Amino acid sequence: MSTIALAPSAPSPADPALVRAIEQRTSVSLFAPDQPVAEAQIAEMVRLATRAPSAFNLQNWRFIAVRSAPAKARLRELAWNQPKVTEAAVVFIVVGAPPNPAEIADRLAPSIAAGFMPPHMPAAWSDFAQELYAQYPQTARDEAVRTATLGAANLMLAAQAMGLASGPMSGFEPDGVADAFGLAAAELPVLLVAVGHAAPGNWPQKPRRPVSDVLSFA
Amino acid sequence: MSTIALAPSAPSPADPALVRAIEQRTSVSLFAPDQPVAEAQIAEMVRLATRAPSAFNLQNWRFIAVRSAPAKARLRELAWNQPKVTEAAVVFIVVGAPPNPAEIADRLAPSIAAGFMPPHMPAAWSDFAQELYAQYPQTARDEAVRTATLGAANLMLAAQAMGLASGPMSGFEPDGVADAFGLAAAELPVLLVAVGHAAPGNWPQKPRRPVSDVLSFA
Repeated sequence: MSTIALAPSAPSPADPALVRAIEQRTSVSLFAPDQPVAEAQIAEMVRLATRAPSAFNLQNWRFIAVRSAPAKARLRELAWNQPKVTEAAVVFIVVGAPPNPAEIADRLAPSIAAGFMPPHMPAAWSDFAQELYAQYPQTARDEAVRTATLGAANLMLAAQAMGLASGPMSGFEPDGVADAFGLAAAELPVLLVAVGHAAPGNWPQKPRRPVSDVLSFA
Repeated sequence: MSTIALAPSAPSPADPALVRAIEQRTSVSLFAPDQPVAEAQIAEMVRLATRAPSAFNLQNWRFIAVRSAPAKARLRELAWNQPKVTEAAVVFIVVGAPPNPAEIADRLAPSIAAGFMPPHMPAAWSDFAQELYAQYPQTARDEAVRTATLGAANLMLAAQAMGLASGPMSGFEPDGVADAFGLAAAELPVLLVAVGHAAPGNWPQKPRRPVSDVLSFA
């Protein structure tokens, strides 16, 4: 299948270009307001976003690409009036849903069809998922945040890979965004990601804490 | 400063290598148990992980690299006995903390010292953060999950960039992991990420849902 890029167990070569890409991503606030992003580019970003991992491959995310002027204006009101919401070409509302073990069979069917996953696997994963989320309900809610965030992380790198800039935002009214953009009751708006062409004057990547402050060994 | 790689507002070229890297990441379950990962490599992975964005640049994450046999055995007990916990060279406990607006000044001081951030900015951001998290307490907790997940996403790509494989896990006992590994009361274990050398027999990347199922426009 065309979605399978790697032969099983192929060793990965080191990739200095990937190190540079991680080092060069910046959170952009200033966007050129008159440079649109094509619908095909938006779809390509989302295609790459969904290559992120998700628990049980549930892919419990979706992406609302906010492009129209009225929708952007409404979203900006719900996001503390941050200018990049209306100035960026597109703002993605990255939505997470609580995991539904009943969907695992459907999500894994292509892996069985591709020939690498044994047919009994979805039932085993579904049993594991049901037990996990029944025992730890907070894990189920967190899974919505986690999965959507993993998708958003890939989305930002995908934008970068396409020569575009991105700016993530967690400063918004969750209930207001859910209402205004028709989220289902169980869905959460997890992150807003503005994407577009950077305008002059953005800051470089902000310096980080020393590794020794955030790494320990056990 | 050496941590600033990009000149302000430099346009980003498109990067096909980054697209390929996103397409080629897989979640690995089978690791070669006798191939260690050097401490310098672990530190480099964490350095790259922390290049991920975080709200207000709070960097409210930390990384516990579980390498010793007893610690791995204990963690495996707390992670549904998943074999990769003991077979991978290292398993990172990616920890998130609720955002603390009082830390913003400290986290942004290097950006002021570097000359691109105006000195009044940390106070303004701190006001915004205090208002945001006071008004939306759930956002504060979610921020711990979000930030740690953004770090974990970079960590997995960093492993890939260094020729290593990774496997994320959300199936673990959160309270047990917090107790066993000395997390502070407010800290959350957000994701386990096994990293090491892939063994033969891993699956390829699992096929994803069609983009049209997960993308809408507004």
